[in-house]
This record gives sequence, structure tokens and C-alpha cells, in this order.
Amino acid sequence: MKLLSLLPLLCGLAACTPPARAPTDPLPSWNEGPTKQAILDFVARVTTPGSPDFVPEAERIAAFDNDGTLWQERPTVEVVFLLTRLKAMAEADPAVARDPAVKAALTKDLAYFHEAGPQAILELFGLVYGGVSQEAFIADARAFLAEAKDPATGRKLTALTYRPMRELLDYLRSNGFQTWICSGGTREMMRLVSDSLYGVPPEQVIGTALQLTWKEQDGKWVLWRVPKILTFNDQGAKPVNLSLALGRPPLMAVGNEGGHGDIAMLTYSRSRTGPSFQMLVDHDDAAREHRYAEPDSGSLKAAAANGWTVISMKNDWRTVYRP
Amino acid sequence: MKLLSLLPLLCGLAACTPPARAPTDPLPSWNEGPTKQAILDFVARVTTPGSPDFVPEAERIAAFDNDGTLWQERPTVEVVFLLTRLKAMAEADPAVARDPAVKAALTKDLAYFHEAGPQAILELFGLVYGGVSQEAFIADARAFLAEAKDPATGRKLTALTYRPMRELLDYLRSNGFQTWICSGGTREMMRLVSDSLYGVPPEQVIGTALQLTWKEQDGKWVLWRVPKILTFNDQGAKPVNLSLALGRPPLMAVGNEGGHGDIAMLTYSRSRTGPSFQMLVDHDDAAREHRYAEPDSGSLKAAAANGWTVISMKNDWRTVYRP
Repeated sequence: MKLLSLLPLLCGLAACTPPARAPTDPLPSWNEGPTKQAILDFVARVTTPGSPDFVPEAERIAAFDNDGTLWQERPTVEVVFLLTRLKAMAEADPAVARDPAVKAALTKDLAYFHEAGPQAILELFGLVYGGVSQEAFIADARAFLAEAKDPATGRKLTALTYRPMRELLDYLRSNGFQTWICSGGTREMMRLVSDSLYGVPPEQVIGTALQLTWKEQDGKWVLWRVPKILTFNDQGAKPVNLSLALGRPPLMAVGNEGGHGDIAMLTYSRSRTGPSFQMLVDHDDAAREHRYAEPDSGSLKAAAANGWTVISMKNDWRTVYRP
Repeated sequence: MKLLSLLPLLCGLAACTPPARAPTDPLPSWNEGPTKQAILDFVARVTTPGSPDFVPEAERIAAFDNDGTLWQERPTVEVVFLLTRLKAMAEADPAVARDPAVKAALTKDLAYFHEAGPQAILELFGLVYGGVSQEAFIADARAFLAEAKDPATGRKLTALTYRPMRELLDYLRSNGFQTWICSGGTREMMRLVSDSLYGVPPEQVIGTALQLTWKEQDGKWVLWRVPKILTFNDQGAKPVNLSLALGRPPLMAVGNEGGHGDIAMLTYSRSRTGPSFQMLVDHDDAAREHRYAEPDSGSLKAAAANGWTVISMKNDWRTVYRP
């Protein structure tokens, strides 16, 4: 007993087993501090009946980016899938292998795409993801996800989700929020894992999409994937697709710095009449995850200018990955 | 007392006050018969734990057409809005008034559109609904709906919803279903009334949409309506947009005959693995609503061929409109 009572003094503050916390802490993987407090304060503010900022349940919608916000984005799961699929297509069909954009993608010739512009990337998306039935494509994505590993560490890609974010999603839902995903991955891919990884049903997932067409094939009507992008759900496309899906800005939006991908979504949430809350993950944790930043710090500057809450992975998260 | 007990004998079966029903009847505006029974049977089948056809709540999604299914479509509310708006635009701008498609629309010159093809109608949609911020457009639609009346009867257009369908929506929700609208009206217009008329939240409304863009205007970021149709949500576009929104076919789909608009949506629902249920409203009630039919009876033939349940407004509905 005596030894145990000395333990906190012996092992200092940071390196030790966390102190026992009240069993009601909804966010145990978040360190105490202004970020965690901002979440708790906001949720209390909008859910307390009689509060001037009370928001009815029907309007409690939170939109989360996925890559770099709910799971790691180095490598980006969708890009691994795209390249895996492209490689298989090139091996099966010499005409595909000869396409200059395909060659550039498979040899990681970034200069080619800088030259060719974003349209070349969108066309590659169409080629790799189109020309197949929706049903067959989903089956392929499911098979890929079952096996996909991070080439660097050998860990299963679907295992690299952030534990504090899963707690946040659960906490919001227990307070009457709908939790939506609005991210750059394809809808089909994300919908295969959104429920098991995040507790988000498929109909609350917004992502990149190809054009679909309804056509008769061998006497049966099917959804067919036209080899053209309908929407690449990044940057300015996020408010557009949120508006198409929800009809109004989300009460809360959570994204990450790294590629300016979420500035527009957070700005859209901020445009909501009445209270709103925006958070931006800063990838500043080289030891436990990755450390990267935009050359112009565009997202962090926007956060400072607009009052968004920045989440420091290094300082705000006690644990990064789920066990 | 004696007189009252004779009443049923005096007034026959059809013309009389309906007999008192069990207080638990969830569909009091539906006449007893095979259609009502098919609804009750299907819901029992998919919601009874242990039943071989049990469907978990997460998969209980019902998609309803709106025009001609949840409210009347003669006149179609969206078309009244389009023409009202077009008239105001033509009066304000002589260049608009000189446009041959505008002239044809305002003089109801159907021959013009038969000649020019569907593309001309889509371009007209773009002209009338685009070139304005999303916020301003929604404000205009709200103002229109507050006043809009059926030119034939003078009744408020938003009052012409079907009472049996509101009961069906409530009944499904009380059994764990999500009730979605998937219809040809614009998302913005339908979302202004979907909750008050049907209990359907805006995020469960799929409709026609213009292309939107996220742009800076006078120092503020706004959603701007590009004068081009993104999707005209009718016929084959319905399975496409349901798939984009839900990621899988709905368990149940309800539409109406009249313009072949719902054949694809009901076919898509029927393609679901496991149980599913499709219903088609037949507008066969000239006395209480309207009587109209497709020249080729395409929808009714599809219903017969595919086992969809046909709702006869005349025979299956005790009451048509809500009080």
C-alpha cells in the first residue's frame, strides 16, 4: 500500500500510467486542456435546454473528414487501392499499360501530373474506377480492404484509426448528434468500413463519386459506373456536397491540415446562423503518427483567423491509434 | 338507443360513417382489403425478431416519390414555381422574354418542346433556377410556398397532401424505418416542407439539383447556383441518386403511375438481396382527386410483371386529402 501511494511521485507526470479518472469521462483518450474543454463546453452549450445557444436534435449534425482526421492518410487508403487496381489492370491489358498517365502513376512520376494538371488525375480515377457495375466494384473494394496493409509498417490499413476521434463520435451521438463523414475517399470504399470503424451508417457518408447510369445488361437492370468523375469530394466540393445532402451547413465540422482539403467545409459550417463549432487536426506528432504541414500553413492560418479549434495530436491526444 | 342501433342497417355499407375501429389501427384512412393487408404483413414480416425475413433497423429504409405519391401532381407544385419565377424574370428582363424557350413555356407551347427535345427543358430549368446564391433561392422558394395556390380550385398547394400516405410514413417510422423522399422536385423546395408535411428531415430528401459552386462574393464565401442541371431526379436518375445517397437499394419504394417516373426506383428496390416491398399509386379516382393513366400503362404493366402492390386511390383510400 505504501509503495503504491508513492507511485505518482516516483514516475512524474507525463511518462506514467494515467491517473484514474471519473468513470463518466466521455473522452478518456484526450488530455485535459483547452481543446478537450472546448468540445465539452460546446456540447453542453447546444444541448442544455434553456441555454441561449440550445440547438434542437434535428439540427445537431457534425461532419468529419476521414483521411488524416479519423484515420491516418500516409499512405492514403484510397490511393493504395487506386494504385493496386491500376497495376492489376495494366498487367491484364497492354493497352492500359501503354497509357502515359498510367505509366506515370505506376512509376510515381509526379512531374507528369504537375505538367498534365488535375484533369489527368481525374481521368485516371475514371479509368480505374469506371467501366464496371456498381455491384462488382463494391465487391472488389471489399476484397481489397480485407487485406490492405501499410507498406511501411505492415499494419492493416483499416486498423490505423484514431482512438480519440472514435470517442468524440460516440460522445456526440450520445448527445443527440448525427455524425456524418465528408471526405475525399470514394463513397463505396468508405461505406464498407464506416459503421464498423466509426459507427457511421452508409447513408451518412459523402465522398468522391463516379457518374452512374441505370442500364439493362443481360436482361437485368444494373447501376453501371461511367468512367468519369461526378464529384471529387475535396476542398470547395465539400460544401457543395454537404449542401446537396443536408440542405444546410453542419453545426460542427472537423478536418485536418495537410492539403487545404477542409478549409471550405469548416468555412461553410461557420456560415451557419447561430452557434457552430469547427476543429482542425494538426499533424504535429512525428513520434506517434506523422509530422507534416502545408508550405503556406493555409489551414492553420484559416483556423486562427476564424476561431477554429486546433487539435494538436502531440499535446491533446493521450493515445493516437485504437488498440 | 334503439334508433342508434338501427343506424348501420339504415345507411348501408359504403355511404355511412366508418364503423368504430380498434384504437390501434395505424392506417385508419386505408380501407380494409389486400393492399392495406400487404402493408401490415410486410412490416410484420421484416420487424418480427426470429422471422426468416427479419431486417435490422439500420436496413429499414423506405423511399417515397412525392408528386402524385405524397401530394397531388396536377398541377405539379414545382412546375407552378418554375413558371411563376420565369414570368417574373421575363417581365424584369426583355432579353429573357425574347428567348424562344421562355416564350414557349409561358404560352404553354408544348409543340416547341416536343421539337426541341428534353435538353431544352433542362436548359430552361438552369436559366430559371441558376445564377443566384443558394441562400437567395431558398428564400424565394419559401416565399412562393407560403402563398402558392392551385389555380383550378384556389386551395393552397401545400394542403393537397394525401392523408393515407402520412399515416403510412408515421406507421413505418414507428416500426424503425427511415422514410426518405426521392422525387423530381428540387431538393430546396421539398426540404422546406418535408418535415412539416411528412415528418421527413431535410437530409432524407433527394431531388432535382442544379450544379453548385463554392465561391467568394463580396468578401464572403457562398454557395452559388450554376445555371446548369446537375441531376433531374426522375426515371433512371432515381436509382442513381438513391445509390449515391444510401449506398444500397431501399427495402421499400413507393411511387405512382402517370409518367413512368418510378419504374426504375421500384425496380432498384426489388433488386435488393432479401425481402423488399414496392407500391405504386394508381390515379383512378376522378371524383376525389384525378383520373389519369399512361397511354401504354407502362407502370401498371411493370407492377403486374414484378409483383408490386398497386394502390387504388378509389378503392384503397377512405380519405384522400388531409383535413
